[in-house]
Amino acid sequence: MNLPDKTSIAAAHDRIRPYIHLTPVITSASIDEMAGCSIFFKCENFQKVGAFKARGAMNAILKLTPEQRTKGVATHSSGNHAQALARAAKIMGVPSYIVMPKTAPEIKKKGVRAYGGQIFECEPTLAARESTLEDVIRKTGAVEIHPFNNYDVIEGQATCAKELFEEVRGIDVLIAPVGGGGLLSGTALATKYFSPSTEVLAGEPAGSDDAYRSMKSGKIEPAQSNTIADGLLTTLGTKTFPIIQAEVKDIITVSDPEIVNAMRLIWERLKIIVEPSCAVPFAAVLKEKSRFAGKRVGIILSGGNVDLERAAKLFSGA
Amino acid sequence: MNLPDKTSIAAAHDRIRPYIHLTPVITSASIDEMAGCSIFFKCENFQKVGAFKARGAMNAILKLTPEQRTKGVATHSSGNHAQALARAAKIMGVPSYIVMPKTAPEIKKKGVRAYGGQIFECEPTLAARESTLEDVIRKTGAVEIHPFNNYDVIEGQATCAKELFEEVRGIDVLIAPVGGGGLLSGTALATKYFSPSTEVLAGEPAGSDDAYRSMKSGKIEPAQSNTIADGLLTTLGTKTFPIIQAEVKDIITVSDPEIVNAMRLIWERLKIIVEPSCAVPFAAVLKEKSRFAGKRVGIILSGGNVDLERAAKLFSGA
Repeated sequence: MNLPDKTSIAAAHDRIRPYIHLTPVITSASIDEMAGCSIFFKCENFQKVGAFKARGAMNAILKLTPEQRTKGVATHSSGNHAQALARAAKIMGVPSYIVMPKTAPEIKKKGVRAYGGQIFECEPTLAARESTLEDVIRKTGAVEIHPFNNYDVIEGQATCAKELFEEVRGIDVLIAPVGGGGLLSGTALATKYFSPSTEVLAGEPAGSDDAYRSMKSGKIEPAQSNTIADGLLTTLGTKTFPIIQAEVKDIITVSDPEIVNAMRLIWERLKIIVEPSCAVPFAAVLKEKSRFAGKRVGIILSGGNVDLERAAKLFSGA
Repeated sequence: MNLPDKTSIAAAHDRIRPYIHLTPVITSASIDEMAGCSIFFKCENFQKVGAFKARGAMNAILKLTPEQRTKGVATHSSGNHAQALARAAKIMGVPSYIVMPKTAPEIKKKGVRAYGGQIFECEPTLAARESTLEDVIRKTGAVEIHPFNNYDVIEGQATCAKELFEEVRGIDVLIAPVGGGGLLSGTALATKYFSPSTEVLAGEPAGSDDAYRSMKSGKIEPAQSNTIADGLLTTLGTKTFPIIQAEVKDIITVSDPEIVNAMRLIWERLKIIVEPSCAVPFAAVLKEKSRFAGKRVGIILSGGNVDLERAAKLFSGA
């Protein structure tokens, strides 16, 4: 596996296109007025499995050798990657083994089971996830498909920004959320190759600002998990961090109240469902308005998988 | 004002097109599997002001004489028509006077004010609404634009089904919600002229089934208001009822729990926000599955204006 480049990202897009949605780009006059810039929301909440993760997982499965396909794939994931991998595996007739923390939202476990994924539950710590996964791989011979620290996955996620550039010309700034950095590094590479004049930024929860700190210190800093944006709790990977260091201009951190406010605005004004993690880049744009003033801003809305009860509690401040 | 026909509906569409969205049509494999038919959701929740009402109001304002434009327009409306009329009036520089019950959702009052509409609050009874409106018209000389019992409004609402037929061929059944009947009668006329082989049905809340009973008795029956679908509490009008009698095949009534279930499925599977009234036709399709089995079914999702707190309470059964 090599660092994705222009040719390989284009090839990945052709490879996965039959299995993913070309997601819509939406705009809102009232949101633009409020933000003071022109925002193009790339709606990966409408993607298969409700998140951009469908892209990277599909690409990784399609690149397996026939022998690897027989043995299956395994991963640990708290959410959308789990469903995405189970779905991609099912489409290609590949067994999938998913290690999930007991605390993962029920809606995400249901999704994995519906796609025929076999779930192995573990304690909600990174150590427990990794040891359980090692155990599963030892027993099954499955190939690990890491949620983000994997060039095939990064290459798949890159197709999202590529699609946006194909639909909307002249984007000045593109902003994505950052957790482990799979989407962000893919977005940065796609921008480098398909829209080099566009600046790439990231939004990150202040309560899990490891990417922000890593950019400052120049080494991968450990994540905390003091935020409602539960899709962004992971630490950067050895493959994603160097790409982000090289290609991402800046990371903007936002507080949980700023995330909830942005999420509510997206629900109310755009009439679409997004999960808390997904609202982080829009929160960043609202926080640093002067930086975006008058510009054409692309925002990747990463996913829409949220328990409605949980969302209601966030909105009511409970 | 005459009954809309093929030419006048096409002219209305051309007239309002610069001021409305061509709303998307969305589909979902998981919804189709559950329903046993192919459903095409016409997303008027993404329409200007968040509902199809933008169409009829815009058409009515654009058909005013210059003198009428000077004096302004007035209406009584509990919701989406109020915002739609205020918006259309603002675009054309026409004053708008909106009579609203005190109990109307705050989000809808805010919307009217944001568009420069002048609100006159009254008790939440039809008598109070009508007498307050008469008073406003006497003082201002404004033209009344009724929310549904007005051929210009019906003509505007007809453009929604016309658009759907232009995007999706071969729809076997088209189903819309029915309250006062503006959307339903417009939908029925558009179907008659632009897709005559399509059958038109309506969904109605069982707790306000006056249209269902009117179809049985052959005369306009009074509405009750024992349902969460607060956009559908009105009684049919003298202009809408004859069109519905002539062109609508059947009305399917659904209970409030069926409406909440359909609304939750739309939020969770389609990742879009719809209001309770809007979920009624989908609830009808799920209720009478055998009737729709294997067919291509169009559903008009009428609007997305709902207080998030209220929706949360509905989902939690509170």
